Amino acid sequence: MDLDSSIKGVHRGAVDRKLIPGQNSRFQKQVEFIIEVDKLKHVLRQTILMDRSRRENSAEHSWHIALLVFVLAEYSRETDIDLFHVIKMLVIHDLVEIDAGDTYCYDDRGREDQAEREKTAAERIFGLLPCDQAEAFRSLWDEFEKRETPESRFANAMDRVQPFLHNYFTNGQTWQANNISSRQVHERMRPVRDGAPDLWEYVNNLILDAVKKGILNE
Amino acid sequence: MDLDSSIKGVHRGAVDRKLIPGQNSRFQKQVEFIIEVDKLKHVLRQTILMDRSRRENSAEHSWHIALLVFVLAEYSRETDIDLFHVIKMLVIHDLVEIDAGDTYCYDDRGREDQAEREKTAAERIFGLLPCDQAEAFRSLWDEFEKRETPESRFANAMDRVQPFLHNYFTNGQTWQANNISSRQVHERMRPVRDGAPDLWEYVNNLILDAVKKGILNE
Repeated sequence: MDLDSSIKGVHRGAVDRKLIPGQNSRFQKQVEFIIEVDKLKHVLRQTILMDRSRRENSAEHSWHIALLVFVLAEYSRETDIDLFHVIKMLVIHDLVEIDAGDTYCYDDRGREDQAEREKTAAERIFGLLPCDQAEAFRSLWDEFEKRETPESRFANAMDRVQPFLHNYFTNGQTWQANNISSRQVHERMRPVRDGAPDLWEYVNNLILDAVKKGILNE
Repeated sequence: MDLDSSIKGVHRGAVDRKLIPGQNSRFQKQVEFIIEVDKLKHVLRQTILMDRSRRENSAEHSWHIALLVFVLAEYSRETDIDLFHVIKMLVIHDLVEIDAGDTYCYDDRGREDQAEREKTAAERIFGLLPCDQAEAFRSLWDEFEKRETPESRFANAMDRVQPFLHNYFTNGQTWQANNISSRQVHERMRPVRDGAPDLWEYVNNLILDAVKKGILNE
C-alpha cells in the first residue's frame, strides 16, 4: 500500500521502519491498518446528530452502538450471549464503508449492488492486516451480515435502534427529507424484533407515535 | 433532565412514554443516557485526522482506540487480561468530557482542575443511568483513571498510542502548533511502557525520528 496515494498528508516512509525485531512485517501491517481505518471518520451517514447540527459519520455511529450494548444488554432475546463478541462485530462492521460508502438503508437502487461492493471492500481493508487477523475480522463481519447467531442478532438490533432513536428524537427530519413511510421503517427495524423483542415493542410504539405526530408518513 | 434544555432539537416528551411495562423508569433513564452521550460527538480534541482535514472528536477517538485493542492486543504486557473489560473502559472513558471538555494533555493549567471537573461530570453523566449501571460505569471510569489494573494499563496505552500515531503521521502538526518538546511527549507516553512495552520501543524510536526530521522540538 502506498501511504501517500491512500491518505493525503500522511508522512510517507515511517511505517516502513523496522522497529520491532522479529515482528517487522506484521507490525507494519497493523500500523497501516490503524492509519487506513481513520477514513471511516469521513464516511457520512444519513442520520443526523441529536442537535441536528450535522450528519453523523460511521466512526461515531460505531462508537455509539458499542455503548448501546452496555446500556441495553438486558433486552437481548438471548440471555446467554457473548457481549464481547457483539462489541467486536459492531466496532468493525462499518469498515467496509471506507471503500463502499454508506448505502442509505431505504435506497433500493444503491442496495442492489451493495453486497458486492462491500465484499470487495472487505477483501481490501481486512486484507491490510496480518493473515490471522484479516481472517478473524472477515469472519466477524460475515457473521454480522448473516444475522444467524444470537450475538449477530443482538448486534444488528443495536445497529438499527440507534439511528431510529436519532430519527425519532429529531422529529423525523431524515424520514421527511427522504419521504420514508412507516411501513419502510417497520420493515427496516425487524432485526430489533429478532435480537431484542422488548425494544421492538418500544420501537413499534414510537413508529405509531411518529405517524400520529406527522413526522413520519403512514 | 429536561431534554429541551439539554439538547437543542430533541423532540420533547417522547422518552416520558411508558412503553415497557414494569421497566418504565429504568428504560426511560437508559434512553435519556443514550441521547445525552451523543454530545461526545461535539467534543473536539487537539488531535487532527490523518488527512489533516479537521480535528478529531472524542467519539471518533473512542471508537478508534477500541479498534486498536483488537489489532494490538498481542503487545499487552500482561497476556492474561480481560480484553472485554479493556474495551468497556475505552468506550466510556471520555464521556466526562461532555461536561468537562477535552483537556489538552500538555495544558498544565487546564490539567490543574481537570480531575475535579471530570469527577463532577462523572457524577452527572453516569448518574443519568439506573443506579446499578451508573455504579458499573463509574467504577470502570475510576479504574481507567487509576491505571492500577492490567486492563486499565493496557487501555491507557491504547489511549496514548492512537493520538501519538496521528501526531507523527501528520508531520507533527499539533506538536508544532503547541510548541511541544520530545521530553513532554516521552513523559506523556509512559503509560505505553507500563501497558505495552513492545509498543513503547516503537514509540521511542518514532520520537527520536520526529526530532531528527524536525517535526518535534528536542
